[in-house]
Amino acid sequence: MDKVDITQVATAKEAGYLAHIAYDSVIFGFDGKQLKILISEYHNTKLFALPGGFVKINESLDDAVRRGLRERTGLDNIYLEQFHVFGSLERYIPETMEMIMKGGGHNPVEDCWLLDRFISVGYYALINYESVNPQPDELSDSCCWYNIDQLPTLMQDHTMIVAKALETLRDNLDKKLVGMNLLPERFTMKELQTVYESILGQEIRRTTFQRSMLAKGILNRHEKQFSGKSHKAPFVYSFKKDA
Amino acid sequence: MDKVDITQVATAKEAGYLAHIAYDSVIFGFDGKQLKILISEYHNTKLFALPGGFVKINESLDDAVRRGLRERTGLDNIYLEQFHVFGSLERYIPETMEMIMKGGGHNPVEDCWLLDRFISVGYYALINYESVNPQPDELSDSCCWYNIDQLPTLMQDHTMIVAKALETLRDNLDKKLVGMNLLPERFTMKELQTVYESILGQEIRRTTFQRSMLAKGILNRHEKQFSGKSHKAPFVYSFKKDA
Repeated sequence: MDKVDITQVATAKEAGYLAHIAYDSVIFGFDGKQLKILISEYHNTKLFALPGGFVKINESLDDAVRRGLRERTGLDNIYLEQFHVFGSLERYIPETMEMIMKGGGHNPVEDCWLLDRFISVGYYALINYESVNPQPDELSDSCCWYNIDQLPTLMQDHTMIVAKALETLRDNLDKKLVGMNLLPERFTMKELQTVYESILGQEIRRTTFQRSMLAKGILNRHEKQFSGKSHKAPFVYSFKKDA
Repeated sequence: MDKVDITQVATAKEAGYLAHIAYDSVIFGFDGKQLKILISEYHNTKLFALPGGFVKINESLDDAVRRGLRERTGLDNIYLEQFHVFGSLERYIPETMEMIMKGGGHNPVEDCWLLDRFISVGYYALINYESVNPQPDELSDSCCWYNIDQLPTLMQDHTMIVAKALETLRDNLDKKLVGMNLLPERFTMKELQTVYESILGQEIRRTTFQRSMLAKGILNRHEKQFSGKSHKAPFVYSFKKDA
């Protein structure tokens, strides 16, 4: 099958996609010290964006998001969850899309479907930073982790999408951390506290945090093993399997 | 401006709408005894459905949902919240849409945009049952409240949409009940318990429920006023303003 250049057809149908529907993904990772987000930079545009894409005609929305993330970042088998749909009129900025296509060496045809209005479904994931190696796709110069408090200026409404993802995480944060893989299997109390502080956007007193976490009954504390290192090594914890 | 018959044009653009994007709304009400949902029945089809609709080209998604709900049910000024996007391939059943159009006396043109695949954004609202008087629109025979445990068979994936709305409500239920208007301003403990039991789908012991609700510190208890009625009238409660 010949591959269609999706910038050279007028309708989404000719390109093999559904018109007007996009997704954007907010992928959170934690390097033991800071909460990070995966950001792509489009060729020759200085435009930074969340990894996103479109839905093929014969593909479910969830499958589209998984496929797109794999193609755009190299990440596979990531558990993503919807958090919000962005459907305002203000997010419709065809000039930005045109700039991205031209930056990638494509001059879009007149009335190209990619210049239409898109409603975007936001997805997020909490992933194990150490287990992945993001790779930029052909549209992008880079696909890198950025600290949540040092993000570059993002295109369109992507800054708002990140803010909304963080807001979603704050509801039932315990449950999300237990269910997803943001932390390695074993972690210190300090690492756990750093994750909470980054997501909540505020500092927490160490003793208060520790008491409150232990009271929830969701952590296993593991015995220190003799390793030849300092006896002052911190305890490590894991989430209880049934938490 | 001539009003377009949207069943007689091939493209969404000619109809004035965005292709492929719909919404469905789950409107919860409580009559003091049972949790209910608003359901429409389409003319001459025996098809029961959640009130839903499409997004106009120059309208935000949120505005479309508010407009659609007003047009289809007569309800205005309802605070709706997104809860999930339904984007599977299984929900694409053009025969159902054709039946609805024909039931309403419209024979759709070939390749009518309404027979395309739609991804639907689910919205829900908790409203004060007493303050509204739902009215069917021109597409429907009726627009009525149904008990949550006695719903008619719903078309397409609407049963799943209701289940997902209930699942969403269960997370942070206290907060949602405080923030939305499912209950009248003053209610009895028994009414509150009935709401919880309907949404959680399980019975709760009366004493356990009462103790747990009072411990949350979100309720005001009001003094009984002399009314000439039995002194055994139950206490009434309201949610604290700052809860």
